[in-house]
Amino acid sequence: MALFTKEEALKYHSDKRKGKLEVISIKPCDNQKHLSMAYSPGVAEACREIAADTEKVYEYTNKGNLIAVVSNGTAVLGLGNIGPEAGKPVMEGKGVLFKIFSDIDVYDINIKATTPDEIVSFCKMLEPTFGGINLEDIKAPECFEIEQRLIEEMNIPVFHDDQHGTAIISGAGIINALEISGKKIEDIKVVVSGAGASAIACSEFYVSMGVKRENIYMFDSRGLIHAGREGLHESKKAFAQDKDYGSLADVMVGADMFLGLSVKDAINKDMVKTMAENAIIFACANPDPEIPYTDVKEVRPDILMGTGRSDFPNQVNNVLGFPFIFRGALDCRATAINEEMKLACAQALADLAKEPVPQEICDAYGVDKLEYGIDYIIPKPLDPRVLTWLAPAVAKAAMDTGVAKIQLDLDAYCKELETRMAASQKRTKSVVESFGYDF
Amino acid sequence: MALFTKEEALKYHSDKRKGKLEVISIKPCDNQKHLSMAYSPGVAEACREIAADTEKVYEYTNKGNLIAVVSNGTAVLGLGNIGPEAGKPVMEGKGVLFKIFSDIDVYDINIKATTPDEIVSFCKMLEPTFGGINLEDIKAPECFEIEQRLIEEMNIPVFHDDQHGTAIISGAGIINALEISGKKIEDIKVVVSGAGASAIACSEFYVSMGVKRENIYMFDSRGLIHAGREGLHESKKAFAQDKDYGSLADVMVGADMFLGLSVKDAINKDMVKTMAENAIIFACANPDPEIPYTDVKEVRPDILMGTGRSDFPNQVNNVLGFPFIFRGALDCRATAINEEMKLACAQALADLAKEPVPQEICDAYGVDKLEYGIDYIIPKPLDPRVLTWLAPAVAKAAMDTGVAKIQLDLDAYCKELETRMAASQKRTKSVVESFGYDF
Repeated sequence: MALFTKEEALKYHSDKRKGKLEVISIKPCDNQKHLSMAYSPGVAEACREIAADTEKVYEYTNKGNLIAVVSNGTAVLGLGNIGPEAGKPVMEGKGVLFKIFSDIDVYDINIKATTPDEIVSFCKMLEPTFGGINLEDIKAPECFEIEQRLIEEMNIPVFHDDQHGTAIISGAGIINALEISGKKIEDIKVVVSGAGASAIACSEFYVSMGVKRENIYMFDSRGLIHAGREGLHESKKAFAQDKDYGSLADVMVGADMFLGLSVKDAINKDMVKTMAENAIIFACANPDPEIPYTDVKEVRPDILMGTGRSDFPNQVNNVLGFPFIFRGALDCRATAINEEMKLACAQALADLAKEPVPQEICDAYGVDKLEYGIDYIIPKPLDPRVLTWLAPAVAKAAMDTGVAKIQLDLDAYCKELETRMAASQKRTKSVVESFGYDF
Repeated sequence: MALFTKEEALKYHSDKRKGKLEVISIKPCDNQKHLSMAYSPGVAEACREIAADTEKVYEYTNKGNLIAVVSNGTAVLGLGNIGPEAGKPVMEGKGVLFKIFSDIDVYDINIKATTPDEIVSFCKMLEPTFGGINLEDIKAPECFEIEQRLIEEMNIPVFHDDQHGTAIISGAGIINALEISGKKIEDIKVVVSGAGASAIACSEFYVSMGVKRENIYMFDSRGLIHAGREGLHESKKAFAQDKDYGSLADVMVGADMFLGLSVKDAINKDMVKTMAENAIIFACANPDPEIPYTDVKEVRPDILMGTGRSDFPNQVNNVLGFPFIFRGALDCRATAINEEMKLACAQALADLAKEPVPQEICDAYGVDKLEYGIDYIIPKPLDPRVLTWLAPAVAKAAMDTGVAKIQLDLDAYCKELETRMAASQKRTKSVVESFGYDF
């Protein structure tokens, strides 16, 4: 059952003030003195400091807390290539999530551009303004080249969430699922349905985690990706099996994990029955997963199942990643988001799932309790501990791998995060309440 | 005497939260239902509406109230080419002014780019996201080509404030100054010191207003611009006199107006003495004008004098223009800011100066009274009536000239503006106060 009607969703976007974000002036500006400091002539003092030492831009501007969410609208949610205007509500929504989960300021920038060259050149020009760039909803395979070039050519973190978000969250799920089943990561057989940006990135991330590349079987709309197929893009070729091992049903036999990033009904009960004992299914197609949760449980109650939905256990939700990855990266002024930072994020998420869950979190999800086990291996997005577990873990990995320009005291940092979020939520609340919405 | 110390100005920029702008989430987001509407799956309803009709982007996103302030930092205030990072405090400051004077949301975008091709291509990609583009602090002569190409190639308003801002405000001053002196605009002799972006644009605007091109004498660092000089840029060539009429001192004899957009001490008392009766001097160099106000008044009390300073009469301050020009342009969804809209803005500003000034405005400036006459021909920035006089005038000109996509009822619009500003100021106040600053 949907939580809202179409009319409610549209009203939410247009009522009182159009859209979901507002830019607010945070320094007092109600007299001549304040105005003279906010703008000419007083602002020149800040300009001169930065002109003498570019790093001071982090001291006198909002750069250190500012992320550009850049999209060209070519692969928006499940909607496809709907263009930058139609993608804008999603990118503003991303700004909302960054704000309410980690107090990061977002300028959403929806651009009229299609080629990697255009997008790379655009993003590179943004470097002076932003502390990082979150690429979003840019179609594959262009997204791979765009992100890779930007990572190489820019000195601020660049992160394509569609690629790495699901990888990190499902990666956390794998860590705990394997612990529960007692299997070793280097032994598991993984079947991937879908070969888009997220599927490729998930598979690469699993390899980083220890999955053997030859144990990954990836299917696109034409079947198993293997060496006998012609014209494969480099990104797919990296997962080509040596030969054609048959259909999805054939390959599902004995699989320890199924990752679905494709479409509703991609697999069925018969296929699920043939999977290995204590297998994992992450069926992430939205809003309807590759197979319903209840179908899986009916035939194989031993299987650990996760979906993209909030109304079933183990939601694989990117919001558990990007706000905290960028929070940690910004706060230690990391020059990149490297593999170690992503792995640290997944590990921290996996660790948190083993902690007792406060009753108010259970209440927020309308459940009696949440206890570590096959129906709870991933923390819930509304759990406020996610911020203080993940951001410091990401920052620590950045410091350990030498990409951090600032060395944080992690205990003090944790406390600061709590204070900061409380204040941020209070500000947001005062603004939201002033509008007097009735939804 | 400065209103603030260097330390205070720097503290203003870094205290409590770095910089001067914050992005706030304006829709409620404190439960599962709200989150499902802000982002997936509910956001898809808004996306689909826009995909079916691109204009709906104005209904379901913040585009209609969002301006990009784009700068490459090559001509920042009086500081010159200090680069995009060092320019960022100014662009954030511009965002502050847009917000507090007209409730417009600004994303300040400081880019690493120098050539017109780069900047034009960058700005064109921004069209889906923004309701308009305010170019800022881009050096001449590149700024002319950049703005012109963007105006021709984009369907949202593009406005280079450094060019047109001073033109419009000083233009308003000229309207009233000539009314007071009884001179006709087609007869006046104008001397311009400086030949940068603003000087060229002011001169072009005065021509639009009725000044004869051949009556304008423009000086750059090499002297009078005239046909005998080689290698003149097109923008200067448009004001080349037929021959060399001598030095600034020579040409000032009998001049009805001096416009200074150059440097401190560009003119002296002896030159001023030779000007025509009831002449006008706008000496806009910052922070020290081309000649001090008191020097002019000492030798020629009949001259109407304005400067860029708030502590002397007739401040020529761009903040009297851009917030209201864009407000009017956004609200009638103008596809451009044309000459008629700029002229309407100048006229409305000139008209407002003739209205009785409420005592609280006088108090805000520490003066007993402000009365139409040679020491008060331009309204004060803190006068809240500027919004309701200028924005409707600009919108009306847009509607009259066929560039408006929405036809406004101007009386209703005026009332809406007042309500809107009051609410906006309340929101800003609640956020600012929550930080507990002591300045």
